[in-house]
Amino acid sequence: MRYAVIMAGGTGTRFWPKSRVAKPKQFLNLIGDKTMLQTTVERVRAVIPEDRILIITNADYVSLVKEQLPNLPEENIIGEPVGRNTAPVVAAAAAIINSRDPKGSMAVLPSDHYIRDEKTFLSVLNAAFEKAESGHNLVTIGIRPNRPETGYGYIQRLEEGSVELAGHTVSEVKTFAEKPNLETAIRFIEAGDFLWNSGMFVWSSTVILKEFEKHLPQMYGQAVELAGTLKADSNRAIELFYNSVESVSIDYGIMEKAETVHVIPAEFGWNDVGSWMAIYELEEKTEQGNVLSARNTSLADCENCYVYSETDKLIALVGLQGVGVIDTGDALLVCRMDRSQEVKKIVEDLDKSGRDIFR
Amino acid sequence: MRYAVIMAGGTGTRFWPKSRVAKPKQFLNLIGDKTMLQTTVERVRAVIPEDRILIITNADYVSLVKEQLPNLPEENIIGEPVGRNTAPVVAAAAAIINSRDPKGSMAVLPSDHYIRDEKTFLSVLNAAFEKAESGHNLVTIGIRPNRPETGYGYIQRLEEGSVELAGHTVSEVKTFAEKPNLETAIRFIEAGDFLWNSGMFVWSSTVILKEFEKHLPQMYGQAVELAGTLKADSNRAIELFYNSVESVSIDYGIMEKAETVHVIPAEFGWNDVGSWMAIYELEEKTEQGNVLSARNTSLADCENCYVYSETDKLIALVGLQGVGVIDTGDALLVCRMDRSQEVKKIVEDLDKSGRDIFR
Repeated sequence: MRYAVIMAGGTGTRFWPKSRVAKPKQFLNLIGDKTMLQTTVERVRAVIPEDRILIITNADYVSLVKEQLPNLPEENIIGEPVGRNTAPVVAAAAAIINSRDPKGSMAVLPSDHYIRDEKTFLSVLNAAFEKAESGHNLVTIGIRPNRPETGYGYIQRLEEGSVELAGHTVSEVKTFAEKPNLETAIRFIEAGDFLWNSGMFVWSSTVILKEFEKHLPQMYGQAVELAGTLKADSNRAIELFYNSVESVSIDYGIMEKAETVHVIPAEFGWNDVGSWMAIYELEEKTEQGNVLSARNTSLADCENCYVYSETDKLIALVGLQGVGVIDTGDALLVCRMDRSQEVKKIVEDLDKSGRDIFR
Repeated sequence: MRYAVIMAGGTGTRFWPKSRVAKPKQFLNLIGDKTMLQTTVERVRAVIPEDRILIITNADYVSLVKEQLPNLPEENIIGEPVGRNTAPVVAAAAAIINSRDPKGSMAVLPSDHYIRDEKTFLSVLNAAFEKAESGHNLVTIGIRPNRPETGYGYIQRLEEGSVELAGHTVSEVKTFAEKPNLETAIRFIEAGDFLWNSGMFVWSSTVILKEFEKHLPQMYGQAVELAGTLKADSNRAIELFYNSVESVSIDYGIMEKAETVHVIPAEFGWNDVGSWMAIYELEEKTEQGNVLSARNTSLADCENCYVYSETDKLIALVGLQGVGVIDTGDALLVCRMDRSQEVKKIVEDLDKSGRDIFR
């Protein structure tokens, strides 16, 4: 049977002042009415029922997850007492799924990405599952890039030996590449065989556990123990696991060390929604290129501006180009949209000065 | 005896959202702790006692004036039921002063200008009074310009025949010039004999009444009648006067028609405070040229920005140059500082759409 493991532990700072430590990006309705986590679950629920969807989040967010996903069985929500990067998440989830269903296969998915074309996404996901279920295969989904983005990792695929499966191409991965500089990113785009690393993986629970046994044997043992003791006292089992497990990413701990990894190149309007600029780009614009996500605005001679407000307060803009105004009632951010990634500087400053407006 | 007539009837829109119809510029503490009206009164009070200071304002603002100037005799505050430009203000004030004190002289002063060097201002004012009291003289104060400003009217003086009086030069006025375009303004500055029209006038009440009798005889009669009936029923007398009097400016109605007008060129750090940009220029700046009139701010890579807030809310700016952020709690303005004059566009828009945030 197919399972989905949704990683919802992030503590993003780039959507401050809307995102706070107490309510990071995945729990916000940045696009549309539903939160990004709710949208992610709805998307996979079309093919995987809720009792086979696991959410791994920070222990502090468990109640938020329950609130936002009231139909999910409580035992499917795992709260990490401490963050240990992505490998322990995958190991724990694989061991739990494998103990429930030794033939279970699983998709590991981020909780905070945007996907425009859900139908194509589900079709790619199905092809990934078919490939994963057909042998000892680690499958990742790669996004066909449309610009030399320096904010993502890249996957280079081997075109020769590619096969068609369930309407999609499956290739072997040649190399994983870290976030490049602009020059390298341009080279990647020109080469044509590079894809964006979406952080979405599909494999059978048995196969990934074997990979853990080989490359991270200690973590493998800890995960198997977790799965064995979970029923007796789940809180204590989870706490023991996270307090002892090594902190390492699935990419570094497994993917880059595995003998063979497969990738499916895909195009379904993917966006990792990394900054306010991404929201601006995804939203509908006025003739002047402005996005007005606010109830009461007045603009004079403004172009390519973004206004977001949760209040009824009038927000007036005069003579601005490419400026974002984000008002959450208790905090106001005004930033150049093309520098919206630097919002983290403000958050660091707030953190250092002990002001609680980030909490 | 010397009197001061302070004109406080303006309904400025350029300081929206801080200024509203219900509370225009002169009643705001835009610079320092006191309101512009309070500062204006304090300035002249050094040489003219409060019982000889008259405030002419809109009837709607009489209670505001009383609140801000509790020591002023109530009968010195005149509320105009309807605005009729500046000539009726001067005619009424001159008739009232003349009926109290036939030898009274008066300075007519705006209530909403900034003057840095008050000592020099008082010295110039004294020289103007001395000139006014020495014969049939209309005296105006001209500001030595330091830039080709297109927002002010200009006064050209005759250098020949100038005399020294009480430490200042007194010249005859050659011409009054309307607000020029930039080319003309540059020519004015290069010519060297042009001054900014500050809107400050000094004359004896008898002399200015004679000028009214000559150039605006009907208004003269109406003003004399006002002064005569004021004591019996002041509200009714004022209402009768304003409802029947012609609407005309003192510049057009008298100054430009008078045979001779004198001007004293002066330099005392004058600023008409016409926009948020003027406030920015008058305030102390950080090393990066930012002005932070707010309790809780955080700036990253910002230069020449202006932040004004009446709330405790955190205001964060990222990557901005020359942008103003004005937060009054119920409205927020974000504007390019060098276009802060265009705030009136917003106000017009609000007025048209019937939104009450301007009221």
